[in-house]
Amino acid sequence: MNFLEKRILDEGSVLPGNVLKVDKFLNHQLDISLLKQMGEEWKKRFQDAEVNKILTIEASGIGIACIAAEYFDVPVVFAKKSKSINIEGDVYMAEVESFTHKTVNRVIVSKRFLGPEDKVLIIDDFLANGCALKGLIQITEEAGAKVSGIGIAIEKGFQQGGKMIRDMGYRLESLAIVESMDPEKGVCTFR
Amino acid sequence: MNFLEKRILDEGSVLPGNVLKVDKFLNHQLDISLLKQMGEEWKKRFQDAEVNKILTIEASGIGIACIAAEYFDVPVVFAKKSKSINIEGDVYMAEVESFTHKTVNRVIVSKRFLGPEDKVLIIDDFLANGCALKGLIQITEEAGAKVSGIGIAIEKGFQQGGKMIRDMGYRLESLAIVESMDPEKGVCTFR
Repeated sequence: MNFLEKRILDEGSVLPGNVLKVDKFLNHQLDISLLKQMGEEWKKRFQDAEVNKILTIEASGIGIACIAAEYFDVPVVFAKKSKSINIEGDVYMAEVESFTHKTVNRVIVSKRFLGPEDKVLIIDDFLANGCALKGLIQITEEAGAKVSGIGIAIEKGFQQGGKMIRDMGYRLESLAIVESMDPEKGVCTFR
Repeated sequence: MNFLEKRILDEGSVLPGNVLKVDKFLNHQLDISLLKQMGEEWKKRFQDAEVNKILTIEASGIGIACIAAEYFDVPVVFAKKSKSINIEGDVYMAEVESFTHKTVNRVIVSKRFLGPEDKVLIIDDFLANGCALKGLIQITEEAGAKVSGIGIAIEKGFQQGGKMIRDMGYRLESLAIVESMDPEKGVCTFR
């Protein structure tokens, strides 16, 4: 069992509706030491990959991506959930359905920050049905950039997102893959 | 002129409507080296302050707060913009008007992550009218926690937020205070 799986068992909780709550350390309160371990682990797993930019999506991906970026020594770009008046000009856009919030968001990335010269590591906290990830991949490829890899903190292995992304040929490294969740007993198992 | 002021002059842009666009390095694409300099500078300015937690607000505050947290060796909590089904139980809540988006958001922090034992450094990217900051202060004090300090990247010195917060007695350290902005010439000056 790795450091993240152990942390999930120790401090996560399994709720009805396939909800895995990890807000104590990953997506509401953020344990920076844990995020460093995650960044270090992704750097190890992607050591042979060409990466000059990390792409993530607001909000929960940002902290994880920024700490990981220190290990790759690259800037972070985060896809924004709505068009801000602070962003002018052309943007790449994708529609993303949120599993957690049951809403559809339009996410955008300014064309100034992603282009054919970029080799992108996509980072996010969760992978369930893969909607957010598909949006980020679509934006990256529309920009003519290369998806060098995808780093996920927690993959819900019993949903179809991980299989779909791997079947499409992308290099996906999830630090914890949850195989099953039992809300009655409040426990989960890992692949 | 400090490192952030210089970066704003070099790569920021001044737009009509008192908009200072710094999305190339601060709030859409994030220059992690710059964020490290900012964290180091806040640590220097708040070296005598008791801080055991950093509080920020999604989305632009998160990256800055996480990198700063490495210098303070504390966890980050970010206020979330809407009630997620992943957060159960009691939350602290504040209404926050966004200067940029012209919207009012309800922001929440789980009561599990803020309490009387906490000495909080509040971090955010911008301070203009002070609405977001007032919301974060309100949440901190409702939790019985202490506001040990407030670190802002860019304060718009010609809006009333900074004066209001200082008049309330809070220790506010803004790394760049914009004194005036001229959208016609596309320039700004610093205090």
